[in-house]
Amino acid sequence: MINASIIGASGYTGGELLRLLTAHPEVEVVQATSRKKLGEYVYQTHPNLRKQTKLKFSSPTALEPTDVLFLALPHGQAQGNIEEYAAAADYLIDLSADFRLRDPDLYREWYGEEHTAPGWLEKFIYGLPELHREELSSARYISGVGCNATASNLALLPLRQAELLEAEKPILIEIKVGSSEGGASANPGSHHPERSGVIRTYAPYGHRHTAEVIQESSLENVSLTMTSVDLIRGALATVHGTVKPGVALKDLWKAYRGAVNENPFLRLVKARRGVYRVPEPKILAGSNYADLGFDLDPKTGHVISICAIDNLMKGASGSAVQSMNLALGFEETLGLEFPGLHPV
Amino acid sequence: MINASIIGASGYTGGELLRLLTAHPEVEVVQATSRKKLGEYVYQTHPNLRKQTKLKFSSPTALEPTDVLFLALPHGQAQGNIEEYAAAADYLIDLSADFRLRDPDLYREWYGEEHTAPGWLEKFIYGLPELHREELSSARYISGVGCNATASNLALLPLRQAELLEAEKPILIEIKVGSSEGGASANPGSHHPERSGVIRTYAPYGHRHTAEVIQESSLENVSLTMTSVDLIRGALATVHGTVKPGVALKDLWKAYRGAVNENPFLRLVKARRGVYRVPEPKILAGSNYADLGFDLDPKTGHVISICAIDNLMKGASGSAVQSMNLALGFEETLGLEFPGLHPV
Amino acid sequence: MINASIIGASGYTGGELLRLLTAHPEVEVVQATSRKKLGEYVYQTHPNLRKQTKLKFSSPTALEPTDVLFLALPHGQAQGNIEEYAAAADYLIDLSADFRLRDPDLYREWYGEEHTAPGWLEKFIYGLPELHREELSSARYISGVGCNATASNLALLPLRQAELLEAEKPILIEIKVGSSEGGASANPGSHHPERSGVIRTYAPYGHRHTAEVIQESSLENVSLTMTSVDLIRGALATVHGTVKPGVALKDLWKAYRGAVNENPFLRLVKARRGVYRVPEPKILAGSNYADLGFDLDPKTGHVISICAIDNLMKGASGSAVQSMNLALGFEETLGLEFPGLHPV
Amino acid sequence: MINASIIGASGYTGGELLRLLTAHPEVEVVQATSRKKLGEYVYQTHPNLRKQTKLKFSSPTALEPTDVLFLALPHGQAQGNIEEYAAAADYLIDLSADFRLRDPDLYREWYGEEHTAPGWLEKFIYGLPELHREELSSARYISGVGCNATASNLALLPLRQAELLEAEKPILIEIKVGSSEGGASANPGSHHPERSGVIRTYAPYGHRHTAEVIQESSLENVSLTMTSVDLIRGALATVHGTVKPGVALKDLWKAYRGAVNENPFLRLVKARRGVYRVPEPKILAGSNYADLGFDLDPKTGHVISICAIDNLMKGASGSAVQSMNLALGFEETLGLEFPGLHPV
Repeated sequence: MINASIIGASGYTGGELLRLLTAHPEVEVVQATSRKKLGEYVYQTHPNLRKQTKLKFSSPTALEPTDVLFLALPHGQAQGNIEEYAAAADYLIDLSADFRLRDPDLYREWYGEEHTAPGWLEKFIYGLPELHREELSSARYISGVGCNATASNLALLPLRQAELLEAEKPILIEIKVGSSEGGASANPGSHHPERSGVIRTYAPYGHRHTAEVIQESSLENVSLTMTSVDLIRGALATVHGTVKPGVALKDLWKAYRGAVNENPFLRLVKARRGVYRVPEPKILAGSNYADLGFDLDPKTGHVISICAIDNLMKGASGSAVQSMNLALGFEETLGLEFPGLHPV
Repeated sequence: MINASIIGASGYTGGELLRLLTAHPEVEVVQATSRKKLGEYVYQTHPNLRKQTKLKFSSPTALEPTDVLFLALPHGQAQGNIEEYAAAADYLIDLSADFRLRDPDLYREWYGEEHTAPGWLEKFIYGLPELHREELSSARYISGVGCNATASNLALLPLRQAELLEAEKPILIEIKVGSSEGGASANPGSHHPERSGVIRTYAPYGHRHTAEVIQESSLENVSLTMTSVDLIRGALATVHGTVKPGVALKDLWKAYRGAVNENPFLRLVKARRGVYRVPEPKILAGSNYADLGFDLDPKTGHVISICAIDNLMKGASGSAVQSMNLALGFEETLGLEFPGLHPV
Repeated sequence: MINASIIGASGYTGGELLRLLTAHPEVEVVQATSRKKLGEYVYQTHPNLRKQTKLKFSSPTALEPTDVLFLALPHGQAQGNIEEYAAAADYLIDLSADFRLRDPDLYREWYGEEHTAPGWLEKFIYGLPELHREELSSARYISGVGCNATASNLALLPLRQAELLEAEKPILIEIKVGSSEGGASANPGSHHPERSGVIRTYAPYGHRHTAEVIQESSLENVSLTMTSVDLIRGALATVHGTVKPGVALKDLWKAYRGAVNENPFLRLVKARRGVYRVPEPKILAGSNYADLGFDLDPKTGHVISICAIDNLMKGASGSAVQSMNLALGFEETLGLEFPGLHPV
Repeated sequence: MINASIIGASGYTGGELLRLLTAHPEVEVVQATSRKKLGEYVYQTHPNLRKQTKLKFSSPTALEPTDVLFLALPHGQAQGNIEEYAAAADYLIDLSADFRLRDPDLYREWYGEEHTAPGWLEKFIYGLPELHREELSSARYISGVGCNATASNLALLPLRQAELLEAEKPILIEIKVGSSEGGASANPGSHHPERSGVIRTYAPYGHRHTAEVIQESSLENVSLTMTSVDLIRGALATVHGTVKPGVALKDLWKAYRGAVNENPFLRLVKARRGVYRVPEPKILAGSNYADLGFDLDPKTGHVISICAIDNLMKGASGSAVQSMNLALGFEETLGLEFPGLHPV
C-alpha cells in the first residue's frame, strides 16, 4: 500500500481521482485539498462517494509528505509551486496543462505567455501510456493529458505507427464534447436551459490542445475544431486525413488491430450490423477504454479515424492512474476495471 | 395599435413577452428595460429575436408613459414602486408574485414577510382567464400567475366547477418541472452536468405557489410537491384527490369536456392508443395551450387530474398576454396562435 | 468459484447480470442464452462488455446444469418451465414477476390471469435483502423484485420498521422513471423524438408493482402513479403518507439512520446545502445503492419519503446478485462495489 | 385562398407541412393522406394540431384535384407515379429525393439505381429559394431539399457568391444532426435508451446528400461526414475549406453580410460575448431561419463556415412552403413567421 494525496480535489478530475484511488487496492488516499470546501466531507461535493470514504477536504497549505501527489489544479497554478510539490512526494502527477509540452516555445505559442518553470518541462513524461508506456515505467514526474488531445492522439496512433498518412496533407480533427469538459463551475453558457441540446462550435480552430497533438504526433498541419453537444461525459474525435497512395482498407484493418492488441484499454469498434457499429462515448462513462474506428474513401484516399473516450477517465484521471500504475510497478489496469454501462 | 413596455426584459418571462408582443398585430413594444444589459440589442440575450426587432434594452429609470406596462421583475420588487408603475400606464400587468394574493395574511404566511403595499392587493385581478375571464375584461391591474399554481388550478378546474371533489379530503399535487422555471441566472444546481438527467424533489411540501392554489380553488387541504426533471420548458401537475360517493367516470368526462369547450386554450387529451394518450408538456413549448387529462380508480374514488403547460407561456407570459387581450378588448387568442411543435 | 448461467441474456436486466457476474470474483458465467442473438458475441449486444468476455449467446434449449441459474425472461415465461429450470441448477433466481407474489389470488388480481405453477409460489423468497436478509441466507429459490416496488418498499422501510405510519390512511406513491424500465425493444413510444423530454404519466393508478408493495408492506391502501421522464437509468419513488399523532421530525431521523446503518446499500441523503440535498437516481447509474430521504409537514402529519435507485441494479440485477451472495455465503456486497459516477 | 393537399402526411415532414399550411392565411388544406392512419384525425398523430384542425387522414388512392400538391413520401415512391401526381394539381412540390438532381447519372451514382422517370428531372426546380429564387417564381414543379445538403449549401453560399474558395482544394463538411432526421418510424437505433446521449458518426463519408451539394455548389471535391447527437430538431454543418491567397477576414464579413441582407431567412451570428456567439440549431426549432457563422485561420487559409437549421423547416417543409409562396406570388415569408423560442 502506498499513500496518495490530491491537490484541488473538489473539481471533476479531482473527484474522479478520488473515486478511482479510494477503490484502488494498492492506494490509500490520505489527503484531498480544497480551499473552497475546506472541512467538508468529500462526499458532500462528490455524492457518489457517500459511504465510500469519510475523508474531508483539507487545506492545500497543510500539505503532508506522501508517496504520490496528484495535482488537479486549474491550469497555470502548478508551475508556480512546482518545487514545493516535487519536494512533498516521490511521484508527482500533474493533471493540468502546465507540464504537457516539452518545448517552452510551443507553450508560449499556444498559451500566450511564458512558462514560469521551463527547466522542469524536460523532466516530465507525457502521461499517455499508449504512447509512452516504457518511459512511464521509470518516470517520477508525469503530466496529465488534454482530453481532446488524447482522443486525437489515439485516433492517430494506428495511422502513425503503420505510417499510412500523407504527413504533409492537412489533418482536420472535429471533436464533439460533453459538458463536463467545461469543469465544475457554473457559468451563463453552462446554465441548463442554455446548454441542453446544444450543437455549439465554440472553437472553430486554435484550441490549445492542438499543441499536444502536434507534439505527440509530429504532424505539423493539424487543426482542431471543437463542438459542444448534449452529453455530460464523453468526447469523440473524428480525424480527417489522407492516406499515402496505394493504402487500402486492409492496411487500416491491420494497423488498428495491431494497436488494440498491444494496448489493454484500446478497442476496435467497426461492425456491419447492430446498434453499436462505431465508437460512441456514451457507453464509456466511467471506463478507461478508448474505442477506435475508421473508414476510407478509396476514390480519394480520404481516411476518417474515430476515437471515443470518457474525457474524465482516459482523457484525464483514468490515464493518470494508469500512468501511476506503470510508474509504481502495479498491474497497468489495476483499479481501472469498470467497463462502463449499457444502456446508459 | 397600442404601446407596451416591459420592465425587466432580460429574463425568461421578459423574453417570452418580447417574442409575443413583437409579433402581436395590435401592439408595438416601445421599451424593454434591463439594468444588466443596458444598451445591448434584445436579440443578443434572446437570440430567437434576431431579425425580428432592433429594440435595445433601456434603463428602468427612464420609464416613459405607455398604454400597457408589463412588470417582469424578481419577486418583491414591484410592490415597492407600485405607485410609480401605476402612474406610468393605463394598464399594469405584473408577472411577479407580488399581487397574486388578495389577502395580506395569506401573503405573510407563505412569503414570510409583510406585504409593503397591502392596499393594492384588492385592486388586482388574478390573471388566469380560465378563472377570471369576466373580471379581466374590465381590469386595469392584472397580476401574473405562478406556473405551478396554474397547472394545479387548471387541473382542478373541471373537478371544482362540476363539484365532484370531496373538499375535506387531502389534495396532493405532484408537479414535475423543467429547468426554465428556475429563471435565467446560472447557479451550481443549474450547471448542466449537475442538472441534466435529474429527478430532484427540491420541495417536498411548502412551495409558495400553494397559496395561489388555496386562494383560487377555495380548497384548504392542499399540498404541492415539486420535482425537477430533464426538460427546459414545461410543467405537469398531477392532482390526487377523492371524488364524492357515486361520482363515476362519465361524470368526469362531462366535466372535462365542458371545460375544454368553454376555454379556447384548454384541450382534453385522453386516448386509448397512439403515443400521445395523456397530457405532455413537451409538445406545448411556445404554445398557450393547457392540456388536461384524468383517471378514476372506481374502487377507492381516487381521482387523478393532470394538467400540462409550458411554464413560460400559460404559466406566465402567455396568460399575461391573454389577459391583456381581454382587458383591451382584443380577440382573446390574438398573438397566441402558435400551436407548438411535433416532434420536439 | 461457482458456475452461473443466464436465460434471456440479451435484454437489459440480462446484460446487467452479465456485467456484474463477469466481474464477480467468485462466479464464472458459463452460459448466456438468447434465441434472437444466437451465436453472436454478447458484446455485440452489450457493447460495454467488449474485451471483457468472449462469451457467445447460446440456445435456451441447450441448457447445461449449473450452480446458479438466473432467469431474465419476459414475464410469464418462467412459470411454464419452472420444473425444468429448477432441475438444472442448485439455485434459481428468477428476475421476472412470475414468483414475486406468495398469494395466487393476489397474482390473479393484478396480473389478470391464473398462475400456472401456484404450488411453487411458496418456495420462493422475495429477493430484496433489506427485507428478507435472513431467509435469503438459506434460500434456494429467489424471486427478483419489481423496480418500482423496490423504490417504494425501501422508501417505506424506515417508516414501517419504526411503526410511524397511520396504516389506514391512504399511501400515494408517485414514481418517476427512466426509459430503460421499458426494456430493450423499440416501440413507437420509445422512439427518441417522441420519448426524449417527456413527462408522461402512463399509469395514473393500477400499476402491477402495486401488488408487491402491498405484499411486502402489509399496507392495504396503496396506490402507485407512474410517470416517465427523460433519463435512461433511474427511478425515484415519492411516498406520501400520514404519520401517527405525535410523531416528530426527530423520530424520522432516528428511523432512517437506523435503516441505513443496518443495510450496506442504503444511504441517507438529507442535507441543507450543496447541490445534492435529496436522493437523486442519476448518480446511482450502475450502483447498487438506494438513497433515502424524507420530510414532514408538522402541521398536517403529511410525511414524504423518497427513495432513488438504478432500476436495473437495486431494482433488478443488483438485488439479484446481492441475494445470490447471501444465499451462497459470499460477502453481501461482493461484485457490487461500483459506487456510481459524478458528474453523470 | 388556394387548396393544398399532402400525400404521406403522417411522417415528420408531412406533419410540419400540416402545421404550416393549416395556419397559412392563403391556403386551405383539403386532403392529407396516410395509408397507415386512414380515417384517424391528424391530431392523433401530430398532437400539436389538436384544436387546430378537424382534418382526418384520407386514402392516397382517393386523390382529388387540388391547386398545390405536396408529396411527403419515402424516397423512391414519387417517381413511379409522377404523371398521376402532376395531373392532379397545378403545382407539385415533392419533398423526397426523387427530383432533386438534374442529372440521371448523378442520381445513379449516389442512389445506386436508375431513375425511373428521368425525363422529369429537368422540369423540376430545386426548392431552395436562397439559390433559385428567380426560377421558383415561375416554377410549377419544385423539388424539396435534403436537410444536410441545405445546411451545407447555405454555409457555402457566401463563400461561393464572393468567389473566396480555392475550388480545387477538398471541402470537408462535418454535419451534426438530431434524431428527427431519421423519420417517424422507430428502430433499434432510435430506441431512447440507445439513442439518447449519442455522438454517433453513422456515415463517415458517402452520404447521399453529397450529390445535392455537388450539384448546387459546382464544387467537385466535397465530402460529408454525418454524426448524430442528442437533439430532436436541428442540423449544424461545419464546412472546412481553403480560401484563395490574400482573402482576409474582412472579405468574409462582407460576403456573409451581403448574403444575410439579400435573404429574409438568413442571419449572421458572430459575436464576441454572450452565450449565443455562433449559430446553434436548438433555438431554430420550428423556425425557417438559417443562421450562418464563419472563421478564418489566417496562417493557413483554413476557412470554417457554419450553418444551423431546423432540419424539418429550412431543411424540408419550411423551404417547401417558402418555395410555394414564391411560385404562387405570395409574400415569401408568409406563414413562416414563427421565430423560434428561447430558452428551448
